[in-house]
Amino acid sequence: MSDKQDDQQDMVEISRRRLLGTAGAAGAAGLVLGAAGGAATYAAAGEPSGGGDAPALATVGAGTVPFRGAHQAGITTPLQARGHVVAFDLAPGAGRKEAVALMRRWSAAAELLMAGRPVGDGDSGVARDAGPCSLTVTFGFGASFFDRTGLVARRPAQLEPLPAFSADRLDARRSNGDLWVQIGADDALVAFHALRVIQKEAGAAAKVRWQMNGFNRSPGATARPMTARNLMGQVDGTNNPKPTDPDFDRRIFVAAGGDQPWMTGGSYAVVRRIRMLLDDWEKLPLEKQERVIGRRKSDGAPLTGGTETTKPDLDKLGSDGKPVIPVDAHARISAPEQNGGAAMLRRPFSFHDGIGPDGTPDAGLLFICWQADPLRGFVPVQRKLDRGDALSAFIRHEASGLYAVPGGPADGEYVGQRLLEG
Amino acid sequence: MSDKQDDQQDMVEISRRRLLGTAGAAGAAGLVLGAAGGAATYAAAGEPSGGGDAPALATVGAGTVPFRGAHQAGITTPLQARGHVVAFDLAPGAGRKEAVALMRRWSAAAELLMAGRPVGDGDSGVARDAGPCSLTVTFGFGASFFDRTGLVARRPAQLEPLPAFSADRLDARRSNGDLWVQIGADDALVAFHALRVIQKEAGAAAKVRWQMNGFNRSPGATARPMTARNLMGQVDGTNNPKPTDPDFDRRIFVAAGGDQPWMTGGSYAVVRRIRMLLDDWEKLPLEKQERVIGRRKSDGAPLTGGTETTKPDLDKLGSDGKPVIPVDAHARISAPEQNGGAAMLRRPFSFHDGIGPDGTPDAGLLFICWQADPLRGFVPVQRKLDRGDALSAFIRHEASGLYAVPGGPADGEYVGQRLLEG
Repeated sequence: MSDKQDDQQDMVEISRRRLLGTAGAAGAAGLVLGAAGGAATYAAAGEPSGGGDAPALATVGAGTVPFRGAHQAGITTPLQARGHVVAFDLAPGAGRKEAVALMRRWSAAAELLMAGRPVGDGDSGVARDAGPCSLTVTFGFGASFFDRTGLVARRPAQLEPLPAFSADRLDARRSNGDLWVQIGADDALVAFHALRVIQKEAGAAAKVRWQMNGFNRSPGATARPMTARNLMGQVDGTNNPKPTDPDFDRRIFVAAGGDQPWMTGGSYAVVRRIRMLLDDWEKLPLEKQERVIGRRKSDGAPLTGGTETTKPDLDKLGSDGKPVIPVDAHARISAPEQNGGAAMLRRPFSFHDGIGPDGTPDAGLLFICWQADPLRGFVPVQRKLDRGDALSAFIRHEASGLYAVPGGPADGEYVGQRLLEG
Repeated sequence: MSDKQDDQQDMVEISRRRLLGTAGAAGAAGLVLGAAGGAATYAAAGEPSGGGDAPALATVGAGTVPFRGAHQAGITTPLQARGHVVAFDLAPGAGRKEAVALMRRWSAAAELLMAGRPVGDGDSGVARDAGPCSLTVTFGFGASFFDRTGLVARRPAQLEPLPAFSADRLDARRSNGDLWVQIGADDALVAFHALRVIQKEAGAAAKVRWQMNGFNRSPGATARPMTARNLMGQVDGTNNPKPTDPDFDRRIFVAAGGDQPWMTGGSYAVVRRIRMLLDDWEKLPLEKQERVIGRRKSDGAPLTGGTETTKPDLDKLGSDGKPVIPVDAHARISAPEQNGGAAMLRRPFSFHDGIGPDGTPDAGLLFICWQADPLRGFVPVQRKLDRGDALSAFIRHEASGLYAVPGGPADGEYVGQRLLEG
């Protein structure tokens, strides 16, 4: 069994134990059936079961991520095959009261969805037949949310607007927003269904500001769990901090005892729509592409040798007396040791929205990164990249968002309750 | 092992035997490695192998569909998780000579891609690490192709423009085209890579006219192979003819001895972008949705009872004296027995392109259907649906294409050679 499958199996077990331990009889029955089959789970909620039998789901369908816990799901969850990100603005006239009701509805829906159960009598049924497929639904608040809800005193300093970068070509209509929701699942219909439910449950309280779709590799496509490749063909994510690193929690999650106690266990998400200029990139010979990145394309190993996980030798000179890893190589400039140990957890989706108006592919990376403080994570790294990264000529930041993602809900809580009612 | 896996395994075996039997030493070596691992396959083509080991690919990655045969791939191939359809117009000044060279390049690329091998030294590497993931690449010719190449005498009568339907809201810029390519794979990166290769190999000979993306369920998401669900949540495809039906070939593929011998073994593809008005649909109570369709939503069984595969009892009356399956139910009007036995093989992808300018989801069905003659398949059924289908209020046909898809290439042939050089 692969590491990823191990992880997912662990999550299923954790989820099962958690829900069996805390839910009432109906909830527990739902979950037991939920682990056996999506149709049965629907049946447990009072809908016709269809076939009558409840065959064991395949691995992909059965993957379950817990909704409750110290942190929200969708941050350390392994990459999923399909993703949606969507930002909402509160409706005119809506304030804190409407926000409370909204976060209650969204939390209740997310918990059902992530357990593979239908949401209400009017459930559209798009996700039927499948299990939860490792669905996660993650909620965050943009800086403008605090103005709208009279909670400015609780707005974290970390939500100060990101600085402008010289390479930004940001579309304000596809940036920011009062509320942000990230949806990921290993099945496109399950993810789409969750997105529709979240939109529907927004009701009159909030309106979609922007929405984007993304994807990663399908489970089982590669022989073993591997670092992702992006649409440039580059291994992408090698230097990501790992949950087993001793300082992982400190770097990624907000510690207790901070200025804003409601953010304890939370994280800050920076979301950037990074368009890749693939027509230009693909014209570049392999050797030049590798010098732009500083790593081999085939396996992600640094140009100074070894394997993907070998530390790049940034001081090594070639026979021409120049650094083997060029001074403007992406891997050099983004290396943690070149950025005062700045660390963020990158957890992106690729995107492909067809052909743009200029005839080039409208494709690239829905860059999503997580950190305890953007001023110690994304910002310093992006500042350096903005000045000297050889990759800049082949990418364009088209949209940007920064969101405070509170910790996971405890039993009986909804997401954001400690902010809205604390 | 599931039926689908059985099918795929059969295909892998067929493909392996075929290529081992016909390819040269390098090809055979490439294929053996190809069955073992994507990276190794890249290595066989002369690129660095990366990790060095060649672990067995997971089922999804290893799925291989043969490029050569009586019919092109991607028609009877089981639904894939990810799809692209793209239409090209020949460039100004390009004619038959350029079309011959283009179809040679495209065929060579498709054969490599479908075997999980890189295409040339400049391969972008996006699909690395994975196997072919049941990739198929399918080529067709639109009516305008025959004008452009001086082959009007070989244009089949079946390519006469489709009649206008009252519910059509067709966008000409996203319809028709000289050439059409359908790409499907069980991994989004593999499919994207194939699309980029096809675009690149078009070179100066042809320019993209339109391009659309779609998806189906991920392998392993459901407990067993099931008929697909569309984004309305309806089981969709129950009445599809099956390759084991005695008259399947006659209905779907062009028989030998016809007016256009080059189309022997070929099929006609009707492609419609069918937008679903999901906001309206989801407001309809379940019971009304089921009367629109004539089938239960949960399991696709006809409203007259039984299971998904039970024949609807179209004459059955309810206690109110009215037909149990309403006179305007979609299942009644599209039933083969109501259309003189018209049959087509529907093989769609769902699509979701975010939020439309009107704030509603830009989502629905990339309807693709296959038949030996559109005048006996799509056209009569759509004529009936256009007049009386209750579903019409919830869908909108936004784009349309009709393409002659020639038979599969024999050894040494490229796709369309019998048309272009016959």
